[in-house]
Parts: sequence; C-alpha cells; structure tokens
Amino acid sequence: MPLPLDALRDLVGPEHVLTSEHDLVAYSTDATPLQRARPEAVVLAGDRDEIAGVLRLAEEHRFPVTPRASGTNLSGGAVPLHGGVVLSCARMRRLIEIDEQNLTATCEPGLQNALLQEAVAQKGLFYPPDPGSQVISTIGGNVMECSGGLRGLKYGITRDYVMGMEAVLMGGRTFRVGGKLTKDVAGYDLVRLLVGSEGTLAVLTEITLKLLPAPEAKATGAAYFRDLEASARSVSRIIEQRILPATLEFLDQATMRVVDESAGLGLPADAGAMLIFGQDGAAPVVERDTAMMAEICREEGALSVEVAADEDAAGKLLAARRGAIPALARLAPTLILEDATVPRSELAGMVREVQKIAEEEGLLIAVFGHAGDGNLHPTCCIDDRDPDQVARVHRAFDRIFDAALARGGTITGEHGIGVTKLQYLEKRLGPVGIDLLRGIKQAFDPLGLLNPGKAVP
Amino acid sequence: MPLPLDALRDLVGPEHVLTSEHDLVAYSTDATPLQRARPEAVVLAGDRDEIAGVLRLAEEHRFPVTPRASGTNLSGGAVPLHGGVVLSCARMRRLIEIDEQNLTATCEPGLQNALLQEAVAQKGLFYPPDPGSQVISTIGGNVMECSGGLRGLKYGITRDYVMGMEAVLMGGRTFRVGGKLTKDVAGYDLVRLLVGSEGTLAVLTEITLKLLPAPEAKATGAAYFRDLEASARSVSRIIEQRILPATLEFLDQATMRVVDESAGLGLPADAGAMLIFGQDGAAPVVERDTAMMAEICREEGALSVEVAADEDAAGKLLAARRGAIPALARLAPTLILEDATVPRSELAGMVREVQKIAEEEGLLIAVFGHAGDGNLHPTCCIDDRDPDQVARVHRAFDRIFDAALARGGTITGEHGIGVTKLQYLEKRLGPVGIDLLRGIKQAFDPLGLLNPGKAVP
Repeated sequence: MPLPLDALRDLVGPEHVLTSEHDLVAYSTDATPLQRARPEAVVLAGDRDEIAGVLRLAEEHRFPVTPRASGTNLSGGAVPLHGGVVLSCARMRRLIEIDEQNLTATCEPGLQNALLQEAVAQKGLFYPPDPGSQVISTIGGNVMECSGGLRGLKYGITRDYVMGMEAVLMGGRTFRVGGKLTKDVAGYDLVRLLVGSEGTLAVLTEITLKLLPAPEAKATGAAYFRDLEASARSVSRIIEQRILPATLEFLDQATMRVVDESAGLGLPADAGAMLIFGQDGAAPVVERDTAMMAEICREEGALSVEVAADEDAAGKLLAARRGAIPALARLAPTLILEDATVPRSELAGMVREVQKIAEEEGLLIAVFGHAGDGNLHPTCCIDDRDPDQVARVHRAFDRIFDAALARGGTITGEHGIGVTKLQYLEKRLGPVGIDLLRGIKQAFDPLGLLNPGKAVP
Repeated sequence: MPLPLDALRDLVGPEHVLTSEHDLVAYSTDATPLQRARPEAVVLAGDRDEIAGVLRLAEEHRFPVTPRASGTNLSGGAVPLHGGVVLSCARMRRLIEIDEQNLTATCEPGLQNALLQEAVAQKGLFYPPDPGSQVISTIGGNVMECSGGLRGLKYGITRDYVMGMEAVLMGGRTFRVGGKLTKDVAGYDLVRLLVGSEGTLAVLTEITLKLLPAPEAKATGAAYFRDLEASARSVSRIIEQRILPATLEFLDQATMRVVDESAGLGLPADAGAMLIFGQDGAAPVVERDTAMMAEICREEGALSVEVAADEDAAGKLLAARRGAIPALARLAPTLILEDATVPRSELAGMVREVQKIAEEEGLLIAVFGHAGDGNLHPTCCIDDRDPDQVARVHRAFDRIFDAALARGGTITGEHGIGVTKLQYLEKRLGPVGIDLLRGIKQAFDPLGLLNPGKAVP
C-alpha cells in the first residue's frame, strides 16, 4: 500500500512532509556506523495532535513509523529499517515550565538536553543526566534510550529523573502517566517501562522531569598511573572510604596516546592509565572528598596527581576525556563506539580482557569510560571498506560482550539495543526475558508498526 | 478441582503445608481493614525451586496463588480473594551478601527491612527506604508494593534501590533481571516493572539492592504553627532555599491532639500544625541546613521551634509522628489509613479539603504524612459495625481521592492498589492506561492465576 501522502500533508502542512531524495538520504541514518535504511517520507510533527494523527493514519494504512529526534543514537534506533515514515519531533522543543516549588521541568520531546540544563541552572536547579551528545541530543531521545553520562554513580541516569509523560500509542490513542509526584504506586510502573523503550511502545509528546538543587561547589582532579591495576585499586579505595564521587572517569593507555597526539595535552608518556575524579556539593565536603581522592591515588602509586585550582583548569583535565572520541575518529574512516558494562569491581579485569582480545584480533581498541559505574566504551577505529577488518571487529566485539556477561555485566550500559545489539539480547536476558519483552510489545503495539525491528528480537 | 495437597507436601515437606482451621483464618487477612478471604492451604516455601514447583502445580491444576511475606499490606494485596494457595516466603530470609565494592546487598524476599538496615549500617552503609512497617515488613513485600517511607523527597523510594532480581513466573519458569550494574539498558525495564507489581506478575526469589554510604551526621527539629498555611509556607521556603531535607513530616491539629492525649508529649495545645524537619549528610551541611530550616519556620510565624541537641532528643520529637498511628488506633475498633498524594505545592490546600470533607461527613479524619513529597495519610477511626458510619467513610474517601486527582495527585502514594483501590484506578490512569495494565498482566500471567483480583481491574 502506498503512503497516504496527501492525508499526511493535510495533517501537518505540506512543508512538513519531506520526500525529496536529499531528505530521504539524510533521514536514512543516525549516528550508528554501518546502519542505513531509507524511509518513504519524513514527517515533522508540530504537536501532540499531529503525532496522534500520523499514528492513526499509520494504523489505518499499515505503514511503519520510526520516531526520531536529533538522531544521535549509537545502536541504530532511529534508522527506518522497514521504510515507511520517519516521525520527527524536532519542531516540538518547547520548555513548557520550570516548577520551582515541586522541583520539576516539563518540556516537549525535541528540546535539547543542554538547553534544558542551562535553563534550570539559571534558577539554581540541576538536571543531572549528561550524555556525551548533550549539546545535540534531546530529552525525548534521552528518555527513549535511557541515556546515561558521566554522573551515573552519584546521580543515576535518565530513568531516575522521569516523573511523568504524555504519549501516543500506534493508532493514535493518547495517555498520561506519572506526574509531579515523588510517590505514586497506582498501577504498574508505565513511566519506567516507557523509559528506554526506544520508540517501540509509544511516541512521547511531553515529559516531566525531576530536578535537584544545583550543587554549590565542584572540584576536579586527575591522576596518572603506571598501570591499570593501580588505577582500579584507587577506585576501590575511594568507594571503601564511602565517597560517592560526582566524576570518576577512566582512560587506558591507547586512549591517552591518541588524545595526546591529537590535542597535545602533554599527558605523561609512561602512564598506563588515567583517572579523572571529581566531587560536587557543599564546599567543605567537596574540598575534603577531593583531597581524600587525591591522597588515595598517591598512596596507590600514582605517577602524578593534580587537583584543578579553578573551573578553567578543571576543563583542561576533562579535555582528555572529552577529546577521546574526536581524537579516535581521526584515525580511521569508521569509529565503533561500544558500551559493554560490568560491576565496578570487575573494571580492571575487563579492561585487560579487552586489551588481550584487541591484540589477538590485530585491532586498535581504545578503552575509556565511567569507572564509577563500570560502564566502558571500548572503541575501535576501522576502515569499513576492508571486509577482513570488519570481520575481525565483529569477532572482537562478540568476545567482548561474552566477557562482560561472564563477569555479571551487560551488553549495553547506555546506548540501547536498537538493531546492533539485538543478536546479543537473548544471551543477556535468557529465553524467558525475551518472551516477556515480546508480550509487552504485543500489549502496546500489536501490529508491530512502531519502530519495527528494534529492541525486541 | 481440589488442591493437589499430596504433591504440595512432597514438594516442601508436610510441615510446610498448613491446612488447619486456625492457620487458614490467620492467613485470611493482611493489615488492611475490612478485607478477608480464606485460602485452601498455606505453603511456606524454603527456596526458589520450591516456589517454582508450587507455580508449576498451580498452572497444571489451575489453582490461584497469592504470594505473601509479613502481610503488613494496607490495600489488601496479600488477601487470597479467590482462595487457592497462599505462598509465603517468610522462611526465605537470608541476607546473602553485602558487596562493599559494588555497594549492593543481595537477599531473599523474606528478610525484614529493619534487619537489612542494621546489617548494612554495621558496614557504614545505608539502605534508605524506611516504610512505617519496617520492623515487620520484608524486602520482598517492600519491593512488590514499592514501599516509600519518611525519606522519599531526598532519597526516593524502593524503586530507586532495586538493581536486580530473580523471579518465577506462573508455571514455574525462573528468570533473572538486572544485576550489580548502575547502567543497563538491555531490554525494557523489567526490574522496575516488577517493582510495585503486587505479586501479580511473578514471585520474587532473590533481590539485589543498591546501597549508599551512611550519612556521617544527622539532626532533627520541630516547629509548631498556629495554622496549616504557615507550616505550608515554611515547606515552600525550605525548598526555595534549595534545601532537600532528609525529613519533612507534617501533623495536623487532630493528629497532634490525639497523640498528645495518648502519649502526653506536652505538645502546645494552641498549635494547628506541627512540622518535623531534619537533615543528614556531612556535619557542617547538616548543621547549616537545620539552622536554616529552623530560622525559616520562625520567620513564618512558628509558635515555637526546637532543634534536638542529640539523638535522644530527636527521638522525642519524632515520637509525635511515630505515635500517630498507635494513638489513633486506640480511638475506635477500626483504623482506615489512607495515602492520597498530591504535588508538594498542593499540600495545604489538600489538607484543608480533607478537613472540610471530614466535617461535612461527621467523621474524625486526622491528617499527617510526608510534607516533603506531598504524601498524606488521612486516617479515619471508625466502628465498622455501624453501617451508616462505614457508608460515610466510603463517601468521604471517594471525595478525598477525587480532590487529590483534581490537584494532579494520585490515589495511592505508597500503599498500592491491591483490592481496595481498584475501583479508583481508571480515574487515575484513564482507559488507555487500564488497557496497558491488562496487556502486561496477560504477557506475564495469561491464565490470571497469580494474585487474581489485585492491581488490574
């Protein structure tokens, strides 16, 4: 059945239905390498009723709909695998309200994370989830992927900040769940079920988020270690001291070398690992915790430790971490950024295993990530025109995911299943878990028209 | 079909299958007034395999199973409405592990909340959820009801601390979800879906919880106000000052009077409202925040304000709040403890409305609860042998729930839907929400044998 283009144009206005060759190519991909599929049309919805209208037409005419915001997905969630319509909420980017009494923000799904952060910061408030993509990625996309970021250990992830939403089911029925309520146990937790559902259950039209008081002070430090194990021992001892750091980021030797060659940060050439640590909160606590973390790193044999004197200096320390992806991206045409995750105590062993696998497969795999929550980003730079290299990369990541699972870990910490991780999902959840996902999908989208081919095998 | 009692006895041992008149009466109720139904047998399971065995027999012989722990439920969740088997996990109360590196505790569902709290406190760790029933109620029960407590505003509720579980479906299939992972987005959020599912989706056999470093210091204060509005203004200003208090409890005049008559605490007779405030964390922050909260209460016209000098004195201030339920329970044969919840900013208006409804219906409804998260406990003392009184109570609570919903609130903050709130659920979730709950129930328990008649209309 052809798409009802006239009905779509009537619904959202002809200028918001894109069908040119150029546009269809642009909406064939998200930020995931090697994933590409063409939609038949792109619809830029302007409000909830337009979204409901598109989903009503989709059910009636049986065309698949792939919801999308900024398309920074790293597991192919916004690639329209089965054609049909890409439904973009990029025009729906209003910050509807900041409620200073109930400590909530309410917005449309297309609002960028960084814009929300800035707006709430101006009121002395704080929205912690800070995915690497935060300047571009949207709250709607963050919610659908349950995005993480650098603050997971202390502050949790997107799931921990979603209080309510309005959403539309395939077919056009609209509903609201949650609200400005710290406590609400009326019914199964539909709010959390929608968070991380990757656009396969419903399309978001409004989101209410929990905010925190902004921390009064923050501080950042960095330590360089001869080897991985010394940095891992430091992480262990920080936690044993009952410190919950706001930042605890890790770079391995390969990452440090690449970043240093690219950005000339003057990182010590003999270091095998770098740890960036930080705390936020009340000034005396920040000072005490930061000093204690620096001292622990020294005691564990750090080659050098520095604590930034001000925000500028802190920015320079964090530059090594923030520069990792751009620096690695310059090395080869395609960057495969993964996010295998293990319990924190398994971090050093897991990094060693990734390094061994990389060596055995003859690949450069740099490892960096969030040491505080065991969330690693093994990153491989390849030329995807070389089929042998592509085959070795696939084999290496198969082995990396198996290693993470064997250590009580998971196949994705914050990037989602999308399409690229589907093949590994049963290993993580088992056959019963897969059956339950299928049952849930069936309950929300019995025709299987909403983002088909994603999240559920 | 009669119960396969011999097969059940073979499975768990004859001493763990209870069928005496006395036992069946004992397991006909939980802590919910006016709810009662007799099971045909009670099975005390000793481990996961026994639970799986019971659920296999249940599917084969088509008998309903009502999972139960300590039975402190306040919405009838553990009452075996359709007979069959009450499946108790009270024997499964092992604390399996405290993992100090990953900051987790793993336990069986029958472990009492207070015992877990004590065990982790001995390691300098902290499990925040503290429902009023914590000395008796279990982690399994807390997870299935998504229990709250006094620390919701600052620390969240049970949902925010469940990291993983092992559970069994009706029919006996066992599965694991989550783990010791801060970040894990592999599949829909089955962990959070099971939290608060009131034993209607699966039976828990093991739970992994997130722990926090124990706060170094804490302090408690109390303020007495001439009227409700002054206490509500103080709550608003505390939040506006960007303080997130560990405790912010509220008592209305009726509650204060009853508590004072019962326990002789010497509460000021002319006060119309009492606020108990507290902070925990690093000592300088605790001192500063507590002083600031006391000052705000004074500025808003408190009749008197006191900050406890030590833990003993703090205990005395909290006694007014802790004594509310026992004191009210002495007034009449039956205590109806409700938990309508509103956004924090709606608290004073909601309390006034409850007082007006109580007056119009000629009832004593005392109101106390968690001011920080808008979670009120309007509590009515009645003689349930008087049908006119019972009718007025039902009418009053119908009006109270309507008022909460009209203010963006909910029909239950922390007690669950169970059976007593089922009639109000569609008002809260709407028809689409109800359809989704039914679809989810169908995905987990297509025969409808697991805790039938609860949570889903």
